[in-house]
Amino acid sequence: MSILVVGSVAFDSVKTPFGEAKEILGGSASYFSIAASFFSPVNLVAVVGEDFGDQYLDLFKSFSVDTGGLKRVPGRTFRWAGEYGFALNEAKTLETQLNVFENFLPEIPERYRNSEYVFLGNIDPVLQREVLRQVNKPRFVACDTMNYWIQSKLDELKKTIEFVDILIINDAEARMLTNEPNLTKAARRIRSWGPKTLVVKKGEYGVAMFMDGSIFGAPAFPLEEVFDPTGAGDSFAGGFVGYLAKAGSLDEQTIRKAVIFGSVMASFNVEDFSLNRLKRLQPSEIQQRYREFKNLTHFEVDASF
Amino acid sequence: MSILVVGSVAFDSVKTPFGEAKEILGGSASYFSIAASFFSPVNLVAVVGEDFGDQYLDLFKSFSVDTGGLKRVPGRTFRWAGEYGFALNEAKTLETQLNVFENFLPEIPERYRNSEYVFLGNIDPVLQREVLRQVNKPRFVACDTMNYWIQSKLDELKKTIEFVDILIINDAEARMLTNEPNLTKAARRIRSWGPKTLVVKKGEYGVAMFMDGSIFGAPAFPLEEVFDPTGAGDSFAGGFVGYLAKAGSLDEQTIRKAVIFGSVMASFNVEDFSLNRLKRLQPSEIQQRYREFKNLTHFEVDASF
Repeated sequence: MSILVVGSVAFDSVKTPFGEAKEILGGSASYFSIAASFFSPVNLVAVVGEDFGDQYLDLFKSFSVDTGGLKRVPGRTFRWAGEYGFALNEAKTLETQLNVFENFLPEIPERYRNSEYVFLGNIDPVLQREVLRQVNKPRFVACDTMNYWIQSKLDELKKTIEFVDILIINDAEARMLTNEPNLTKAARRIRSWGPKTLVVKKGEYGVAMFMDGSIFGAPAFPLEEVFDPTGAGDSFAGGFVGYLAKAGSLDEQTIRKAVIFGSVMASFNVEDFSLNRLKRLQPSEIQQRYREFKNLTHFEVDASF
Repeated sequence: MSILVVGSVAFDSVKTPFGEAKEILGGSASYFSIAASFFSPVNLVAVVGEDFGDQYLDLFKSFSVDTGGLKRVPGRTFRWAGEYGFALNEAKTLETQLNVFENFLPEIPERYRNSEYVFLGNIDPVLQREVLRQVNKPRFVACDTMNYWIQSKLDELKKTIEFVDILIINDAEARMLTNEPNLTKAARRIRSWGPKTLVVKKGEYGVAMFMDGSIFGAPAFPLEEVFDPTGAGDSFAGGFVGYLAKAGSLDEQTIRKAVIFGSVMASFNVEDFSLNRLKRLQPSEIQQRYREFKNLTHFEVDASF
């Protein structure tokens, strides 16, 4: 089933201890789309400037990403510059130029409006609701956000969250959103606002998923070479929603598998700059790493001692 | 099989956002011993002062902890005072009084010298080697340490580590020990110094275990009420080594189960001050939580999509 994603498409300039790259394709919707496309076709809604070359459109198209909703308007594409220290755990933003993204008003093309799976990337919560207004009763809505919206538009964000089935945020955001340091308590509170399921991304510490009567914990894949963490969370969301749309089921075991497929996509994405690793990724590698995740976490059931 | 543990026995004064307790039984060897005793008999070697009342000896004895190696000498027992902030992730040390612990020279009683399982608690690495000199070829040696020894006695610590089968430290210590932020690389380096297996405790983020050709990752048990984190790492080590001694095997699946039993003991320990939760813990609760850990981490094997 097709997935509708609305978010940012950007040019990033990234510096890590291992190298530097300027003006490379980035943005939440780019990472999400390419990662999700390994599982299901994707309909992309975003805005770019006149400097966004056809080669990028061709890239999306080659990954079954429909770019009919990717508007090219006068002006420059959104740009972000950031730097990671030795520990690679947090990006220091050096520069943000919103450019054409500043006046982004998502318009969902007619043929996208029946998408059954919707992912609201990290944009203004008012616009996220505007997207939901334009679609026809999707089966499933997942949503991301960030500290900026939690601090500046908390009430709007809470209104959006009401309509979301699965909220996908990181642990610092979950704590900030609730002013509660205990993640399990924070999760309970967020779920009381609407989302049946909360997925909390913890970077190198993996993922925790909270749903009715059950919690699922998965470690991150242990990598010796993390080259560039940019886009890890969005690749996770892409693998997660992509697998759910492919599987066509929303039962607990399917959602748990989706968490692992999301983790697999994130683990590949951080192995190179931009979408470079995903561009050369093979489905057999995804399946292989999924099995490695199983081996990573397996222990015997017998509880006697 | 019996376990020999050498470490500290202390009186702690602890303040958390949920309460305060003064002069309560603590110390790495206390937490280790009581946690391990649920699985195997423990021989305790430590030093206390004249102020260490018989009621504490009785407590140890009631848990099959042999206190023949717990020396009571003139002076006061080791004291530690610490405080935890709202996030409970790190103790702020308010006061340390080494007292009789300052001149601790471990003497292993004759009847402990054939202990097959040895746990070297967090003491001077020179003394840890002195313990090993006094025992007769144990089947298995596990060892803890802390940032203080990494900074002040790195060479001595590396000499000790050479003789250790399983090193059990936290993630900050693993990074500090190797000056390497990537945990997987740090683990490879530490294992090249001697220990076949490295267990890295990550607090609320669980445990990673590194051994030949395999990594095991386990989340921490998600608790809504963490009352006092003091002793979590030592309770983990107690459950871990305790289960290994009970199982009598050191194959990979047994060690993975030991990680889970260690995590179970740590998760109970943080539910109350001092050893209060472990004192009222039932074996059936341990088995129940082990099964909950299985449910927490389970996902289906099939990697197709």
